[in-house]
Amino acid sequence: MSRARTLKVGIVGLGRLGRRHAENLMSRVAGAELVAACSPLPAELEWARAMFQVQLQVPHLYADYGALLAHDGLDAVFLVTPTSLHPQQIIQALQAGKHVFCEKPLSLDLEDCRRVSAEAARHPQLKVMIGFVRRFDASYQDAYKKIQQGAIGAPFMVYSQTCDQYDPDGFFVKFAATSGGIFLDCSVHDIDLARWLLGNPQAVRVYAGGTRAIHQDLQQFQDVDNGVAICEFDNGKIATFYASRTMAHGHDTMTEITGTAGRLTVGSNPRKNRVEIADVHGVRNECLPSFFERFEDAFLTEVSTFVDAIRREQKLELTLDDATEATRIGIALRESLLSGQAVLL
Amino acid sequence: MSRARTLKVGIVGLGRLGRRHAENLMSRVAGAELVAACSPLPAELEWARAMFQVQLQVPHLYADYGALLAHDGLDAVFLVTPTSLHPQQIIQALQAGKHVFCEKPLSLDLEDCRRVSAEAARHPQLKVMIGFVRRFDASYQDAYKKIQQGAIGAPFMVYSQTCDQYDPDGFFVKFAATSGGIFLDCSVHDIDLARWLLGNPQAVRVYAGGTRAIHQDLQQFQDVDNGVAICEFDNGKIATFYASRTMAHGHDTMTEITGTAGRLTVGSNPRKNRVEIADVHGVRNECLPSFFERFEDAFLTEVSTFVDAIRREQKLELTLDDATEATRIGIALRESLLSGQAVLL
Amino acid sequence: MSRARTLKVGIVGLGRLGRRHAENLMSRVAGAELVAACSPLPAELEWARAMFQVQLQVPHLYADYGALLAHDGLDAVFLVTPTSLHPQQIIQALQAGKHVFCEKPLSLDLEDCRRVSAEAARHPQLKVMIGFVRRFDASYQDAYKKIQQGAIGAPFMVYSQTCDQYDPDGFFVKFAATSGGIFLDCSVHDIDLARWLLGNPQAVRVYAGGTRAIHQDLQQFQDVDNGVAICEFDNGKIATFYASRTMAHGHDTMTEITGTAGRLTVGSNPRKNRVEIADVHGVRNECLPSFFERFEDAFLTEVSTFVDAIRREQKLELTLDDATEATRIGIALRESLLSGQAVLL
Amino acid sequence: MSRARTLKVGIVGLGRLGRRHAENLMSRVAGAELVAACSPLPAELEWARAMFQVQLQVPHLYADYGALLAHDGLDAVFLVTPTSLHPQQIIQALQAGKHVFCEKPLSLDLEDCRRVSAEAARHPQLKVMIGFVRRFDASYQDAYKKIQQGAIGAPFMVYSQTCDQYDPDGFFVKFAATSGGIFLDCSVHDIDLARWLLGNPQAVRVYAGGTRAIHQDLQQFQDVDNGVAICEFDNGKIATFYASRTMAHGHDTMTEITGTAGRLTVGSNPRKNRVEIADVHGVRNECLPSFFERFEDAFLTEVSTFVDAIRREQKLELTLDDATEATRIGIALRESLLSGQAVLL
Repeated sequence: MSRARTLKVGIVGLGRLGRRHAENLMSRVAGAELVAACSPLPAELEWARAMFQVQLQVPHLYADYGALLAHDGLDAVFLVTPTSLHPQQIIQALQAGKHVFCEKPLSLDLEDCRRVSAEAARHPQLKVMIGFVRRFDASYQDAYKKIQQGAIGAPFMVYSQTCDQYDPDGFFVKFAATSGGIFLDCSVHDIDLARWLLGNPQAVRVYAGGTRAIHQDLQQFQDVDNGVAICEFDNGKIATFYASRTMAHGHDTMTEITGTAGRLTVGSNPRKNRVEIADVHGVRNECLPSFFERFEDAFLTEVSTFVDAIRREQKLELTLDDATEATRIGIALRESLLSGQAVLL
Repeated sequence: MSRARTLKVGIVGLGRLGRRHAENLMSRVAGAELVAACSPLPAELEWARAMFQVQLQVPHLYADYGALLAHDGLDAVFLVTPTSLHPQQIIQALQAGKHVFCEKPLSLDLEDCRRVSAEAARHPQLKVMIGFVRRFDASYQDAYKKIQQGAIGAPFMVYSQTCDQYDPDGFFVKFAATSGGIFLDCSVHDIDLARWLLGNPQAVRVYAGGTRAIHQDLQQFQDVDNGVAICEFDNGKIATFYASRTMAHGHDTMTEITGTAGRLTVGSNPRKNRVEIADVHGVRNECLPSFFERFEDAFLTEVSTFVDAIRREQKLELTLDDATEATRIGIALRESLLSGQAVLL
Repeated sequence: MSRARTLKVGIVGLGRLGRRHAENLMSRVAGAELVAACSPLPAELEWARAMFQVQLQVPHLYADYGALLAHDGLDAVFLVTPTSLHPQQIIQALQAGKHVFCEKPLSLDLEDCRRVSAEAARHPQLKVMIGFVRRFDASYQDAYKKIQQGAIGAPFMVYSQTCDQYDPDGFFVKFAATSGGIFLDCSVHDIDLARWLLGNPQAVRVYAGGTRAIHQDLQQFQDVDNGVAICEFDNGKIATFYASRTMAHGHDTMTEITGTAGRLTVGSNPRKNRVEIADVHGVRNECLPSFFERFEDAFLTEVSTFVDAIRREQKLELTLDDATEATRIGIALRESLLSGQAVLL
Repeated sequence: MSRARTLKVGIVGLGRLGRRHAENLMSRVAGAELVAACSPLPAELEWARAMFQVQLQVPHLYADYGALLAHDGLDAVFLVTPTSLHPQQIIQALQAGKHVFCEKPLSLDLEDCRRVSAEAARHPQLKVMIGFVRRFDASYQDAYKKIQQGAIGAPFMVYSQTCDQYDPDGFFVKFAATSGGIFLDCSVHDIDLARWLLGNPQAVRVYAGGTRAIHQDLQQFQDVDNGVAICEFDNGKIATFYASRTMAHGHDTMTEITGTAGRLTVGSNPRKNRVEIADVHGVRNECLPSFFERFEDAFLTEVSTFVDAIRREQKLELTLDDATEATRIGIALRESLLSGQAVLL
């Protein structure tokens, strides 16, 4: 490992996912040190204070984002904030000379994506990475490597789904107004995976359909709880997506990549662990409840990758252009869902 | 079992599938007796002659379809002929007072489908069944029953694929000119399954995409070797289809039905049998080579169902309207593939 | 297919398994014809009468075994009778010049096995086959062929289990007094498979243990409802057996064959069919309820193999010596269970 | 988390497994700090020096065990040394007032086990734990909890195997002289699991068999490369074990626990990750190469559990008596293998 200086990191936003990043940065990522936390919510700052104390560290807590950016010696920020804040917060951090890790999606607005890219271009020495965590999962990594090695010949088709377990509380419905809809919220991961695994082809046309199987209250947001889509790329590459909020059995993220000489499937059965049960229900396995358990290790690898890239001054494979393209395709899917027409890109 | 009279059956067309039907009718279907065979091809009649002789039966062989229909005491015909001949042959048989089993698809032309239905309506005492064999597979039957029993709540989404093993000889390409394209040739099964499993909803809009991953020579027929499609029905039901001619591992027919309380998957791994191999390649199972092995038992059940319905004068669940609707949706998929536009139905 | 004369067959014993053999012989086995049935039980003969009538055949029914053997033109008998009757009935049939198919096990008594072999040796033109049905299952056949082809290198170890679903009625307990115990009743199949798959090694030592997990009433018969055993053969080959009467999930017959270059497993998950269910219980498949469903096709192949061997005058691979050896090892297992000592063979 | 003082730990032995423990202790275990390392091998100390330096820590390195024990402020030692050294090193550490974690097995000699227990009894304030790592695996933990909750009724039977991938270098053969043989080296894990999962029954009789499938050179050590065994406990509980050095497909550790109402299987397919491959070899998954990958997380949990128990002054569930009992049964298995007789305990 490089003996580069340990990075001083500040985190912004300490909801469920923010806390995971904070805990990873606190003790599990070599070369990084969490030195400060920022949130407008007192409860989130309270959580941070306790966490720092357990680790016998001085808690530097900020309610104001600008104050965090001014924290002495800060190298990088982690933004785990509402999507609508991403573009401005990223730009502000870059202007303050900080590296930025930001949760997906980059933005729901294409113009905002481009503003961020333009600002990033002015700071070539700073890293910006959007959290497409699935790329960092060991199984997706293995699939990617196998494709590079020619294991399935020429890959030409992807089927990818993000299916969440049904939540009787309909927690996500609260965020439906600002989530951008099911394709920008969920399928954005599948879009990014499809582009990555198919060798970054250019999307040329999309079509989407959807239904409200359970959550009729999504109608007010013109959103659906189950959506399917076809995305055609140049060079005859195609992806099909499925996103759902209503799975009975658990969180079911699955991706299939078909090539001229074989097919790889990542996550065909969302097994919780290595236990199999044989009883009156048959032979079965329990399933993962959410993306949190599914991508627990990947969240750590993602952060380590980001930190290493900064310390070793290496290029990140995952770029802002990737994030912008995922948003661009996601927006087109939403348009198609609303219009009932194919959308050209 | 009913003690009704044994049906006298004649078969028309003795290619690979015709021979299977002939063998089933010869010795494995209670209540039916194969008494005659018809083909314009001498080699096919030779095969039939030998088969009759092995069974110590008199071979009645006809090169002419009209002559077969005139065979003394004939009750029913099995048409395993080119699709373009189906409509006229069915109509002729009905007019001759014969029950008709005909291979799928009914026709590639919607007007022809309607002509057949009109003729059938004039002969309410005669049965006509199109061979959507998958409905008769024990696993699909089990899934259907479970859905009826409410096992997955309200079913609202189907994913169904028909993926053939890659054939280096490109045998199917020869038939591409008359097959109607991948959706009418392959997906027609998935269309029928989706309608059946979702409770016969009305299709309202379709969209299709496709690619030529290997068989570039399909371009002359405006056909593809891999196609995907979305079919939206009324009441918020949706189906996604995938058809392929290029699988490396075998014949992979799979259908997933999702409801508000669960999901059923039929055929998620096209296992050849119950053997599992652990060796340097990992832990694996061999796969079914073609639909012939996959639906071996279903072909027999299909014929038995047809024969029983005639002998017991029972209504067939699978109707000509089902076959017509499958063709109608299949045609719309082809149109969408060619136009790049969604097609309203 | 050979054009040899159709065999006239009589069946003896029409319990559950006898009926299956009768139905197969009646209409599904080419080259054989069921012409007569024999049973001391009026209800069983009634069933036979009805079956013959449905098939529009003359019912020849006998309460007396000697009378059946005297049936005009009879070629072969199928014995699906209590094990204690097997030896004498086989000998009687041979002396009457009939081929014999007899259900497993040949006998619970080694001396009886030898008497049968001696009698059979006097009638080399007659076939005798004991119904070790698993050898005729397509998956076991595939495993056997793969081993012959060297797929797993040199096979040296077998794990094989016969585990029945728990029957709250404890039906089998009634037969415990005469079944010979769990090893002679159930493991006798696994013993035969192990010998077959390992290349007919000679057993040299066995050890067995067991427990009464649920059926305490088996104590009176010195029997157990769960038994395990190790059987060491010459040349360093080893088999481990497990038999159970108390499975919660279904009938679970499984065999694993390990060689120097790989392992084959037959039946690792007793899937009922190709349906997979994803619901609140996880991802699961239902299981086969009994050996009847598991070996439905194998029972037919078994009978066809026997009939073909007679008609084509071919040697049977499965011999009386195999059946005798299975009994010999089964007896040694029972002895070991009772003594707590290893038993040398 | 407790705010107890951070433990100062020294490690002894830096082979493959020692290094893993060292790395975990260095940066991944909350509440512990690796402060010193000990090895008689210069190369191992070199590795330790580099590791300390990467972490910017002062390397305290000792060639002598006594010197390590005298290290200022040391709280605990981790012994990852040859089995023959375990008893004396544990006793010495206890006498020096240190907590002890020691790799399995405790010893190959029952008298030594008892000496260790006696010494430990004199230091009730010190923790001693033997590294039966499988108990700390998330899947085994889940199975254990399910059993406690009654998921399978009363558990009465265990099948457990430890099967290593074939190593053409025969690395393990070098250690065969001192490993105690396959049962004490490998099955000792399965013995411990069986006792734990069956509720700590008392072993009453064992029988073992084995073969040399590939490694004929084991004959000089009276050892085998594939061994099977039956262990009968009181109250009608039974375990069957299988250990192998010759698997073609990978490391295959699997445990099945059967109860009166169901069965749990841990590790039925040693999947490497969530990738499934469909190609000319069929549908398959790659396998775990060794116990290192299989139990990567468990090694960390194991250490954390030990550290937490010390810091929170909690009782360890896994005791020295468990380790002694595993050795006692393992010795009996070896005796049975050599004598060909059942061994009473």
